[in-house]
Order: sequence, then structure tokens, then C-alpha cells
Amino acid sequence: MKIFCSKDSLLSGVNAVQRAVSSKNTLPVLSGILISAEQQCLRFAATDLELGIRCEVPAQIEEEGVIVVPAKLFAEVVRKLPDTTITIKEQDGSITIYYYQSEITLRGYDPEEYPLLPDLIDPVSFNVPTVIFKNMIRQTIFSCAVEENRPVFNGTLLQIEGSNLRLVATDTHRLAYSISEIDNPEDANFSGIIPAKTLSEIYRLLRDEDEYLAISFNKSQIVFQFGLIFLVSRLIEGMFPNYKQVIPQTCETKINLSVRNFLEAVERASLLSHDKSGSNIIRIKVESAQLRIDQTTELGKISEQMEISMQGKDVMIAFNAKFLIDALKVIDSEQIIFELSGPYSPGVMRPLDNPNYLYLVLPVRMS
Amino acid sequence: MKIFCSKDSLLSGVNAVQRAVSSKNTLPVLSGILISAEQQCLRFAATDLELGIRCEVPAQIEEEGVIVVPAKLFAEVVRKLPDTTITIKEQDGSITIYYYQSEITLRGYDPEEYPLLPDLIDPVSFNVPTVIFKNMIRQTIFSCAVEENRPVFNGTLLQIEGSNLRLVATDTHRLAYSISEIDNPEDANFSGIIPAKTLSEIYRLLRDEDEYLAISFNKSQIVFQFGLIFLVSRLIEGMFPNYKQVIPQTCETKINLSVRNFLEAVERASLLSHDKSGSNIIRIKVESAQLRIDQTTELGKISEQMEISMQGKDVMIAFNAKFLIDALKVIDSEQIIFELSGPYSPGVMRPLDNPNYLYLVLPVRMS
Repeated sequence: MKIFCSKDSLLSGVNAVQRAVSSKNTLPVLSGILISAEQQCLRFAATDLELGIRCEVPAQIEEEGVIVVPAKLFAEVVRKLPDTTITIKEQDGSITIYYYQSEITLRGYDPEEYPLLPDLIDPVSFNVPTVIFKNMIRQTIFSCAVEENRPVFNGTLLQIEGSNLRLVATDTHRLAYSISEIDNPEDANFSGIIPAKTLSEIYRLLRDEDEYLAISFNKSQIVFQFGLIFLVSRLIEGMFPNYKQVIPQTCETKINLSVRNFLEAVERASLLSHDKSGSNIIRIKVESAQLRIDQTTELGKISEQMEISMQGKDVMIAFNAKFLIDALKVIDSEQIIFELSGPYSPGVMRPLDNPNYLYLVLPVRMS
Repeated sequence: MKIFCSKDSLLSGVNAVQRAVSSKNTLPVLSGILISAEQQCLRFAATDLELGIRCEVPAQIEEEGVIVVPAKLFAEVVRKLPDTTITIKEQDGSITIYYYQSEITLRGYDPEEYPLLPDLIDPVSFNVPTVIFKNMIRQTIFSCAVEENRPVFNGTLLQIEGSNLRLVATDTHRLAYSISEIDNPEDANFSGIIPAKTLSEIYRLLRDEDEYLAISFNKSQIVFQFGLIFLVSRLIEGMFPNYKQVIPQTCETKINLSVRNFLEAVERASLLSHDKSGSNIIRIKVESAQLRIDQTTELGKISEQMEISMQGKDVMIAFNAKFLIDALKVIDSEQIIFELSGPYSPGVMRPLDNPNYLYLVLPVRMS
């Protein structure tokens, strides 16, 4: 292998794939990045066997070849290279990087040992506008469980059905739901659970310049393509809970709230509600066009009071403050409708000007 | 106490003093911030008994008073307050913060137990332009020892002698020296060791709008005043090493180097030089108008080569890469003179266009 390229080319390749590098060292070669120079094209690839990312970067190929470089060290070296034309040669399993009169040689791994990123055979695919998909990820991903024995809760359900694209995430305590209308000319029909890490990588890598991303899939894998990036991920096996069943169709109390005022009030009440057990429960009282949060703890006391517009019954209900804050932070609308049905039924938040999003949160039993 | 003020007033007070709050809980009251409303002036103060910071903020005082609030919780609450007029009342040792129709009450500590920040009696003082002093701190403070049994190395020597203001810091492996000419109309004469934490707080709090800071001192304490901030610090007891004796007056090799190129070359070489013992030693070879760094380790090898202009003997010398990088990052000049005298004598860096700074670094014995 012998190639010429800019520092920026190398950096864009490294930045695209580095997070897919395995952090667990089960197979030493997986701590590397696969670099291949073939058919006038320089490609970077990395995988932890669950998520794989491939990226093309501009380069001039003088001699084809392939090598696996140690990811962390190669990335650090690339970041410190000068802004000049870089020459890279591979020889006897080592890679040498030339710049000005200087050079760095790194020992590589055997590319034969590196697993191939699968291309899907006869996949079905559809396109989604980047801006819409990024926003759908942002508004749902935080509701995934972080560590959970049941893997289905560590991912987000992605569904395409007619022109409806849905993302749904739940950790069993709350559920975020987002739907968009998109073109689906191939009439793709898909329902699968995408690992949260995959979606957060896509969120990080998607640039607004990439107008669309293409999503294709088969039974066990899903591929996202945008710009010069190809990202393949396994799907999480198992049954996602029936979210339609969980979302209440009616409510006893309907409140119209300012997102910002409510967020700030909950955040302040949360400061006074942290107790030593790590719980962070606040009590909300809705009564005569007022919402109140009153807390007294060993630290002091807080009494928050907001004017609201409401329909239906008065209610008193307790929530984990974090679950309210998480959602209020990602809702872009100024106002929400907060639907409640007594102290034991879930609360549902809906942005006033956006029927395509909802957030459901279970209450906490008051002691 | 009863006062009215803006959220920004409270925030500027909290931000100014919070870092002086003791992180060790020897005396519970020291985990608080002293707030006093006296003579139409609202003051925040905090101290860990080594460093004390006081700050005045704009407020309307309706009733005088004084209280100690829990620093961390109060700061968190203030950051989450709405942008509106805030009313604060003290009653029975508790503080209540009113905004819109809501309120928060925090339990305070007894202000009688809070130590006074001393005002110096008959101090000698002088003024330093802010821009100059910030730069002097930035270019020396990194050479202080972080944890050292001998406390004198955990601080920076500050000297005023005639019109010469000096800062000197050393951890015994390297020494940074900065000198400036300033007005000294009172003919202040002072030499004392300022804790690194004190100088880093001053660096953080000094704004370029504050044109000058006033420094006053007595035998055991030093006071810095700027804007609405008053900062008092104990001095570190003990003898600072005689830095004049350490700085070589002659050299055998004089090299003229680009700061940026040298920094980048050392950083790259450092990536290949980290070994398992945590050491990070690089070897520099200066010969026939070239500077070379050649390293071979288990990770790979590097060969850096730079054209330089030089006078005097060829030399080979080894340094801890971190000690070179630290200094090269704070030198603003494009070029430095690097003076060497064989492999066992210290190297001295001097910015080519600035005779008021030097950095001395001891070599490492090559194995």
C-alpha cells in the first residue's frame, strides 16, 4: 500500500470510525482500525461485532493494500500530524506515516483476522430527511434503559409502516414516542430494536449537509448510509412491549403548561428533594388553575406555584423529578398538554403544537 | 435581613467566592458562604482559612443582616432561579428566597461562628496591569509541584523589588521565570510564596475590563483587589530556592527553534514514548543544523527531523517530554532560543522576542 492524502482526510476517517472500535479486548485485532486502499478509494472501518462503521476519505492511491492499525495510538498520531501532504506506506504488517522529513512507523495487526462488515443482500430501503431523524433520536433515546437485564429496553424501536416512521424508547418507567411522515416508495415494512449506542453514533455523525440518510435492513441487521459513511448494526432480539396498549386514550385532568416554567420549577424542587437514598421524588398538586410543588426536607423547603389552564379534576401525584426534567429538556415547543388520571395512572406530555410526539411517565406512590 | 436584587447579582457573588469554600469539612460552617447586607451593600464571602474571597454585588438593602448559607445547595438554587427580581429574607437562621409566587427556604449556619477575613493593617501596596499579571501567572503556574512534602514548591514566588515584579515557580525538575517592569511609587519591597490555588483563582476571576489589580501585603498575608473582588491569601512559609544560582549564565549549544514545529514534534514523539512505567522520555540529538528525535519502542518507532539554526557544539540529551510540552504551550512567541550544555546540564528556553521570560528544565540521564 502507498497513498497520499491530507491530514484532514485521515482525521475525518478516524473520527467517523473510532467509536465503533471495541473497548473490550476480546480479540486483539478488534482494537484496531482497518484501512484499505482499493480502486482509487481509501476506506476506514471499525467494528465491535455489534456496530460497524465504514467511511471513505479522499486520497490518491499509488499502490493498493490493506492493514489494521492500533486505533487509539493511530488516532492520537493523526491528531498531532502537521497540516501537510501525508504519505502512508504499508510494509511487512507495519504502517509508516511520512510528513516533511519525519516519519512514524506503527506495528499493525493482520488484516486477514479482521471481520468483514456485511453488505446486506437484496435489502429493502427508504430515505429519511436528516433533520427529522436527528430530532426523533434526540427526543426518544434518553428513555432507553442504560443497564437492564432485558436487552429490548436498551434499544429504541424503529418502525416503518406505510408513510409512518416511528421511534419508541422505554425503560419501563417512562416511554418516549415520536412519529414522522416520510416517503416510502418501495413500501418498506420494518419493525426492529436498534441498540441505543447505534443511534447515538448516528446522531453524532449525521451532519445537516447530509440531506437524507438511507436506511436498509434485513431480519437481523440494519444499515444506515449518509455522506461517505456506511453504518451497520445488529438488531436487538426480543419482543418490544406493546406501546399502543400502554398509552392511555382518555384522561381525567388536562393541564396546559409552559415548558420552560415547568422545567425550571421541577429543577429547583429537585435540588431540595435529593435524599440520601438517591431518590428524587417531587409531589405535584393541581388545583383551581394552579400547579404547586411543595417539598420539605432536611435541607430546607420549597414552595413552587404556577398559574395554569386546566380542565377536569384536581389531582395530587408524585414523580421522579429526573424523568420529568429529561423530557422537558428535549421538547422544543413552548407549551405542553400534561394529561393525568389520578395519582396511580401514568402522566402523558404532548407538545401543544406537535401531535407527532408524546412522553409517558409513571407516577411514584406517595408515602 | 431583607434585600432585593437580580439573579445575575446573586450569580456573580456565588461564582466569585464559591471556590474558596472549604472542600474538607473540618468546621461545618466553612462549607457555607457568608452573606451580609450592611450599609447599602450586599457582600458574599468564603474562606478555607488559607484563601478568602469577598465580593460586593449590586442590591437594594431594605433591612441589614448576616447569614451563612450552605454553599453548594445555595449555588445550585441560584443557577436555577428565573431572571426576575429576587427577594431574600433571613429569619431565625434560615434564608428564604422569593421569586414570582414561589419561595425556597434553606437552613443556614450561625454567622457568629464564621471566621472573619482579615483586613491588612497599614499594608504596603502596588498596582499591576491585569493583562500583564494574568500572562505572568499563565506562564509560570504550571511549574509548581502538585503534591510535594516541601510546601515551598506548591507555590509561586512573587517578588517586587524597585520596578521589577517577578513570578518564579519550580517543582525541582523545571523552573519558570517571568519578570515585568511596573510602577512602584510606594517603593514596595516584598518576597513571598503564593499558593498555586490562590494564583489560579486570581487568574480565573481577573477580567480584562479590570485594568489594574492592587496587591498589598504584610509578613504572612497578601491581598489582591480588583473590580469588586477582595482576595486574601496566606503565604507559604519557608525558603524558596535561590533561582538566580540555578540559571546557567553560559551555554555550549544555542539553538534557534520554531515553537510550533518543536511542540508538535515533541508531542508526536511523546505518543510513541509512553511506557508502562508511566515515564515519557525523549532523546534529542542536535547535529549539523538539524534537530532529531529518534525513538523505538514496543509500539513502533518515530524519527522526527527539523532544520534549525545553531551555534556551538553538537549534543545529545534526554528530557521528560511533558516538561517540554508544558512550556512550549504557554510561550506565545514564534521562535525560542534553546540553550544546552551537554547531556547533564539543564536546558534553558528563552522566547526570541521576549527577554522577560525563561524556562529551565533538567535533563534525564540516558540509559
